[in-house]
Amino acid sequence: MNLSSGLYTDLYQLTMAQSYFLHGKHNTVATFDYFFRKNPFESGYVLFCGLEQVLDWLEKVSFTKDDLAYLKDQGFREDFLEYLGGFSFRGHIKSMEEGQVVFPFAPILSVTASVVECQIIETYLLNILNFQSLIATKASRVRYVAGKQAILSEFGLRRSQGYAGLLASRAAYIGGFDSTSNVLAGKEFEIPISGTMSHAFIQSYDDELTAFMAYAETFPDNCTLLVDTYNTLKSGMPHAIEVAKHLKSKGHQLAAIRLDSGDLAYLSRTCRNMLDAAGFPEVKIAASNQLDEHVIRSLKEQEAAIDIYGVGTNLVVGRSNGALDGVYKLCSFDGVPRIKISENLKKMNLPGSKQVYRYLNPNGLYMGDAIAMETEQTPNEMVHPFEPHKAMAIASEQGKPMLREVMNQGKRSIAKKSTQEIAEMAKQNLQLLPREHKRFDNPHVYKVGISRAVEVLRDDLKNQKK
Amino acid sequence: MNLSSGLYTDLYQLTMAQSYFLHGKHNTVATFDYFFRKNPFESGYVLFCGLEQVLDWLEKVSFTKDDLAYLKDQGFREDFLEYLGGFSFRGHIKSMEEGQVVFPFAPILSVTASVVECQIIETYLLNILNFQSLIATKASRVRYVAGKQAILSEFGLRRSQGYAGLLASRAAYIGGFDSTSNVLAGKEFEIPISGTMSHAFIQSYDDELTAFMAYAETFPDNCTLLVDTYNTLKSGMPHAIEVAKHLKSKGHQLAAIRLDSGDLAYLSRTCRNMLDAAGFPEVKIAASNQLDEHVIRSLKEQEAAIDIYGVGTNLVVGRSNGALDGVYKLCSFDGVPRIKISENLKKMNLPGSKQVYRYLNPNGLYMGDAIAMETEQTPNEMVHPFEPHKAMAIASEQGKPMLREVMNQGKRSIAKKSTQEIAEMAKQNLQLLPREHKRFDNPHVYKVGISRAVEVLRDDLKNQKK
Repeated sequence: MNLSSGLYTDLYQLTMAQSYFLHGKHNTVATFDYFFRKNPFESGYVLFCGLEQVLDWLEKVSFTKDDLAYLKDQGFREDFLEYLGGFSFRGHIKSMEEGQVVFPFAPILSVTASVVECQIIETYLLNILNFQSLIATKASRVRYVAGKQAILSEFGLRRSQGYAGLLASRAAYIGGFDSTSNVLAGKEFEIPISGTMSHAFIQSYDDELTAFMAYAETFPDNCTLLVDTYNTLKSGMPHAIEVAKHLKSKGHQLAAIRLDSGDLAYLSRTCRNMLDAAGFPEVKIAASNQLDEHVIRSLKEQEAAIDIYGVGTNLVVGRSNGALDGVYKLCSFDGVPRIKISENLKKMNLPGSKQVYRYLNPNGLYMGDAIAMETEQTPNEMVHPFEPHKAMAIASEQGKPMLREVMNQGKRSIAKKSTQEIAEMAKQNLQLLPREHKRFDNPHVYKVGISRAVEVLRDDLKNQKK
Repeated sequence: MNLSSGLYTDLYQLTMAQSYFLHGKHNTVATFDYFFRKNPFESGYVLFCGLEQVLDWLEKVSFTKDDLAYLKDQGFREDFLEYLGGFSFRGHIKSMEEGQVVFPFAPILSVTASVVECQIIETYLLNILNFQSLIATKASRVRYVAGKQAILSEFGLRRSQGYAGLLASRAAYIGGFDSTSNVLAGKEFEIPISGTMSHAFIQSYDDELTAFMAYAETFPDNCTLLVDTYNTLKSGMPHAIEVAKHLKSKGHQLAAIRLDSGDLAYLSRTCRNMLDAAGFPEVKIAASNQLDEHVIRSLKEQEAAIDIYGVGTNLVVGRSNGALDGVYKLCSFDGVPRIKISENLKKMNLPGSKQVYRYLNPNGLYMGDAIAMETEQTPNEMVHPFEPHKAMAIASEQGKPMLREVMNQGKRSIAKKSTQEIAEMAKQNLQLLPREHKRFDNPHVYKVGISRAVEVLRDDLKNQKK
């Protein structure tokens, strides 16, 4: 399957394109904003993720002869298909950096290109950014609650949504995980990989100790033993301690034991005591089994003795949201600002080409974002986007522009970043977000306002269309 | 990204493989069963989907030189990597047919191969089958409630989980949808595609009527107009009726109008009346906006006048489950049946190579499945898998074996099926499932039992390990 195909889109993008083409409007320049309206997971923020894939794809996307033949069979016109045959993305993109914390309603990315280019790329852009941002956000919540010392390993591939698993591993790493079990993602995105043994390995031997010894012989310096195949405390742990002693006698060290069932809080404490009593305080305890940020929070409350958390399904499918509601809305066409009317102000988009300025609080932490027209000065006042009587003064000299050019005439204008660099930026950006936006229960709402100029333009356009 | 790579797996499959290799056990033959324990969505069944992708992949999977170089960097041994360089899947697979209705605990697919082959393919197999079965099941529920006459269009790509969207469109079609908006999936899987226009198209024109007329001119015989950009009843509908009249005067017919916001029940009834009064009873009404089986059920209760349902996010991410809990468990190693012990009978697997027999009720509909040893006769009694005092007589002459050979020595032994053929089989199989298993509220639990021989073997092994 050719993922760089321009067919990675919704059919209506192509039917609209044909109509634009026939009316000579296909080269008219438009601007679309990418933003979302609601944080997932009742979180106070979203961690923006997926930009590198989008830029890679935009540099490659095209229609092959085979694609055009398929579209011809679907009834598209020859002249339009000839035009599509020469299609490439030649537009301009401004974006927040990947790994930045972002908030509802503020544009995260803005595309300026011919309207046909803008439309054809919409679906891929939403598909990739919505998903990776969802998973990176979830991962960052797991890291928040697990603490800096915890080792977090993602191993959701088997329950991930098909090929989504490859991107989920990347997003989880950017969100703060240490490693993935997903070997292909490890290779593709240069993410550390980790993995040990399954129950099947142990069952394939007549007894547990022989299985443990066989594995330890193969990986004497990196051996994690799964202790719950038969009976954790009566069989798995005594056997693991025997292996630990054997390894020690040969100059090696058992790395960890892993729990995958039962009462993880009770078992981990008991296993910790058994290991300590046997003289193995350095052997770590790994735990897995339907973990997520809430279960880990509860385990920590119970003082579970867990060093390594293996997180799978709930992370990689972004349970219980499953999707970020990111949208991509026309805000300018042929130089003229546009809006979609709705009775609900929240459903209206903000017209025109814009910039987002971020302001810091006296501690140097993120305080609020002001959405302004691209052409105006850094604002010194921001208005609540839906409650116009709420306004606040902001120090314009502190406003930092957040949307930077990342692509010009279809070519990257920023260097390619490694997954590790992005993860590092995400970590730094999350440190700048005050704790009150990171807590799980009723996180404080981050301030996102609009400038007076944006407010005036929106309200004028709304009144014109009434 | 090379999706046919053997690296599409969890690292532990490869670490275990190296240990088997070093202990000379890598060629030992094992059998693993694929099954699940709980229906998603509080459904009474699962629609099995994804087999074709698994068979395709198994015929191709290998490790390239590049893959092996990566694994060398990860610390794998030269001799093991040389062995992996010659890896291909040469095993044997029995499976239910794709598009069959399946139930908790009964094996759906069974792999017999060298233990290393069995392990390396586990992750891909679970990844693909769990996801597609989840989505096909969800889609079949939407079809069930929407009724046979409704036109169902999937357009979830933008909110699907990244590349998962390609498989989601396939699974939705197999589950009973008529089309997808996903052009690449349409081409790849030969699924009908559909699509019309977005709000942006209308906003790009100075007024709605001009936008409608432009689109109608481009697609005079396949024109669906989105009527809610400004005001559905005061602007969108009067303009759509004007276009319908214009098209009629030219010998064409407006296909449909589409609602994407507001009170869909009320608006659809009102739009129906407006169209009928204007002399356009043949113009269909399409509706979208966060639909799923529950919303559609409510719309039907309210006698909404909707002919075409566009279903996106909730379908393609399998909300609110997100994952099917399918597992892949060792049941035989070197000819010896194996089980994993658990205090919970439900968490134990059934040992040995098995067959599943399906029995019909007097109306010729599916009544129950009996899991038997592969070597025994078709059972005439089945026992509840976890409540051994519950048993029932079954007419052995009616038991139909459900697991058929689909792959032999790594080559398909069944012909490749088109997506359309599988969708047709799914439709027929769903018709054989009694309504009481399809209802949404407390669906009747489908009977899955085990033969006495399976029960005896399981209990013997359990007692041995105690």
